[in-house]
Amino acid sequence: MAWKAIGIFDSGVGGLTVLKEVIHTLPQEDTIYLGDTARVPYGTKSPETVIRYSRQIARYLMNRDIKLLVVACNTASAVALAALQQEFDIPIVGVIEPGARAAAAATRSGKVGVIGTAATVASSAYTKAIKRINPDIEVVNRACPLFVPLAEEGWVDNEVARITARIYLEDLKRQGVDTLVLGCTHYPILKEVIAEVMGPEVALVDSAAETARTVAQILSEEGLLRPECERGNHHFYVTDIPAGFIRVGNRFLGGELGDVYQVSLEQEQEGEDGEETY
Amino acid sequence: MAWKAIGIFDSGVGGLTVLKEVIHTLPQEDTIYLGDTARVPYGTKSPETVIRYSRQIARYLMNRDIKLLVVACNTASAVALAALQQEFDIPIVGVIEPGARAAAAATRSGKVGVIGTAATVASSAYTKAIKRINPDIEVVNRACPLFVPLAEEGWVDNEVARITARIYLEDLKRQGVDTLVLGCTHYPILKEVIAEVMGPEVALVDSAAETARTVAQILSEEGLLRPECERGNHHFYVTDIPAGFIRVGNRFLGGELGDVYQVSLEQEQEGEDGEETY
Repeated sequence: MAWKAIGIFDSGVGGLTVLKEVIHTLPQEDTIYLGDTARVPYGTKSPETVIRYSRQIARYLMNRDIKLLVVACNTASAVALAALQQEFDIPIVGVIEPGARAAAAATRSGKVGVIGTAATVASSAYTKAIKRINPDIEVVNRACPLFVPLAEEGWVDNEVARITARIYLEDLKRQGVDTLVLGCTHYPILKEVIAEVMGPEVALVDSAAETARTVAQILSEEGLLRPECERGNHHFYVTDIPAGFIRVGNRFLGGELGDVYQVSLEQEQEGEDGEETY
Repeated sequence: MAWKAIGIFDSGVGGLTVLKEVIHTLPQEDTIYLGDTARVPYGTKSPETVIRYSRQIARYLMNRDIKLLVVACNTASAVALAALQQEFDIPIVGVIEPGARAAAAATRSGKVGVIGTAATVASSAYTKAIKRINPDIEVVNRACPLFVPLAEEGWVDNEVARITARIYLEDLKRQGVDTLVLGCTHYPILKEVIAEVMGPEVALVDSAAETARTVAQILSEEGLLRPECERGNHHFYVTDIPAGFIRVGNRFLGGELGDVYQVSLEQEQEGEDGEETY
């Protein structure tokens, strides 16, 4: 059982920032990463659709025989984690709880900002998670739909990025948050302009490192860690052709990505229910 | 046969601008529109994936017994039209040819600009189509990946939209194009800022009206038009939940959208080939 791999998925390439921290924390572990590049993004889609996609991916990874599943996508963590935990009986770790823990630990003023996709913000998942830790913390949410396309266009430090950041973040800044959760795996790419708008006194929190710590802790508690002398292998799957993933992924992981395989998830479907009227 | 409906599809809501022109030109015809809102956008994905999705949609609409298919999405028209025309034997009309015809007719200087998604621009579909009409016309392409998210965010006349348009279009302007093809169904929403950058002497061309004329002509030639005294019915299908589509769609169509049904396309798949290594 300890020899099985850790499964990680994201809607695309962003979750590699989480994978990087997992590899850094647990270099002895094998990992299997799946990026749903044929259906990215998730953050603009309905909870129903994100849950359906997440289930297909989880089933696919379960068939690869994993010992723990990391939901590296904030949107999927926000809306699909409970459904996945109900369906499967291995430990499943999202990025919301760890991010909430890091934010609750960082704030001094008791006022935390959260930025994310429309779906993540609509779910209030971060607010609930932070208030479970400390109900006195005030949480202010803001959806930033243009941050993902800006990061993908590589416009991370030009005038457009700066003005966009100002429009999205001005109100959070004015409300006096002293901690800002980067609630989407793409946002650390825009860290500089975000920091510029928020100012040096605001701590920027991303979930990757805290998520990796949570994974290490669970595997340790369950006696599922591989011996520390081992070196893990890393496998990558995507649903669109791998070219774009490989290009961006090498930059994200800062090195060789190795083989990337294209897979089809459509056979992982549950009994579909045909049409529904609205 | 003449009583069958016209099928129209797009990756999302943008193709409704084409539907609107079809209804305006042929009010007697029934239409069936499908927006692939669970997998939108197409413009950032590979030709292979866009072809696969387009085939699934075409199969779905063929099962609804249509007499003609309109590919209202520029990206799908650019990369999947030939594959669809090969697979199915009803007339299939894309938006590239009509747009190219309108641009070739509009230019005086013989220099035409084309803006579109990364996938549309990479395909060179507009360049080839324009040069088939008149090989002397010079065509300059530019991908504008942020225009779709800007239009969806509703940022169509603020500073961010204006600076973005300037960055994308400055070079086309400098090269002296006198006609600009809006090669994506979302772009007409940004028409004002685009016109502001390009100046009043540059004609902006969108394919919707010309595509509707092509549809009318083909149906007329094939004797497939319904009597003009009729009034068509319009049906709408989407792959994500309909809420967002209904909201934006009513704005696009300027009126009542009627019932919108959610459908699953995953059963329309061909024999999938499992994994491929790259």
